[in-house]
Amino acid sequence: MNREVLAKIIDYALVKPNHTKSDIIRACEDVLRLKIGTLCVLPPFVSLVAKKLSGSDARVCAAVAFPFGANPTEIKVKEVQHVIREGANEIDFVANIPLIKSGEYQLVRRDIEEVVCSAKENGDVIVKVIIETGYLTPDEIILISRMADEAGVDYVKTCTGFGPRGATLDDIRLIKRAIKRAKIKAAGGISTYEKAMAFIKAGASRIGTSHALEILEGGSSS
Amino acid sequence: MNREVLAKIIDYALVKPNHTKSDIIRACEDVLRLKIGTLCVLPPFVSLVAKKLSGSDARVCAAVAFPFGANPTEIKVKEVQHVIREGANEIDFVANIPLIKSGEYQLVRRDIEEVVCSAKENGDVIVKVIIETGYLTPDEIILISRMADEAGVDYVKTCTGFGPRGATLDDIRLIKRAIKRAKIKAAGGISTYEKAMAFIKAGASRIGTSHALEILEGGSSS
Repeated sequence: MNREVLAKIIDYALVKPNHTKSDIIRACEDVLRLKIGTLCVLPPFVSLVAKKLSGSDARVCAAVAFPFGANPTEIKVKEVQHVIREGANEIDFVANIPLIKSGEYQLVRRDIEEVVCSAKENGDVIVKVIIETGYLTPDEIILISRMADEAGVDYVKTCTGFGPRGATLDDIRLIKRAIKRAKIKAAGGISTYEKAMAFIKAGASRIGTSHALEILEGGSSS
Repeated sequence: MNREVLAKIIDYALVKPNHTKSDIIRACEDVLRLKIGTLCVLPPFVSLVAKKLSGSDARVCAAVAFPFGANPTEIKVKEVQHVIREGANEIDFVANIPLIKSGEYQLVRRDIEEVVCSAKENGDVIVKVIIETGYLTPDEIILISRMADEAGVDYVKTCTGFGPRGATLDDIRLIKRAIKRAKIKAAGGISTYEKAMAFIKAGASRIGTSHALEILEGGSSS
């Protein structure tokens, strides 16, 4: 896969709390220059990104309930509606990690279903659920991925980048076993072209990374 | 200050995303046993804590917009109303860090004002704003603390425990210079009785910590 094709499936993430408006404006320019598929930002910057990327093919992704997913479902739903109104056409939301770890699977399922439902009411929005694999056991990864697949998410995404670890190839294999319909977004610690390609080979259809420039403009590979 | 008096001004924090229902139940028992003033938890556990602590003097604190504060103001307000309905009588919410770092001070001020206003509509709720000092310059610490003081928060709180660093005594000195009316909650990395006492001497009226048991039952001091 050459870098031009790879760029299309990269979700370039600027979701650190100390990213500023100027960082985001620069990232928009990089997205347009390198034809990166999607730019992911925190809610305060969604409308700015929507404006800067309008007229291009680049998509606007909002990080919702980020990075703990511990907001009540009704609050997540309202945040989804808010960012869609501001111009997001993709949503990366975090599953309710404390409820997963407490074994409250009915509540976890309902949370994912309601977010998907609310986002899908608004037409062509792509929904990704972040399960933060670093906090989960292999069994939990399989269980929550299956649940998310059944709930209608477009992607199961590995990590926020703020959890105990980044994505692993084992994560991808576990998620792949669990899903029938959804695709996989690998994110967390993917900082080179080689790593990105390894995750794609393992089954990821999107790569989330804050290192898009290094991956697409770095030294090695074609 | 002996440990019994110290316990009253401790906000015992169990706000990691992988804390479970069992961890929270055990913490409620510790709060009652050691007569700790307040227990801080993520939204999914507020109603459980309110039930377990009811009939005691212990207060229930909810961490809102945690830990980035990047949710839109209307979403923060709804989350505040939600956790108050569930039984919270204290709110620790995070200021909008990305907007602070972008110099959007009017929006930051409005965010704090609306959260305070919404919480205060509900009677006797104590409101603390977390400014995450580790991301801020000294000038920003002073500016945002002053803004929060004017907006009517009860406490300016240093850190979430998930930022780039914990609280420092310099943080307390800077906040103290900026505020006229509000009090100070020191939180982030305060793991011993001696550290807690140093922050109190510097001007903190509350100590937020996940190490309440070590502080109150540890080896040294009286």
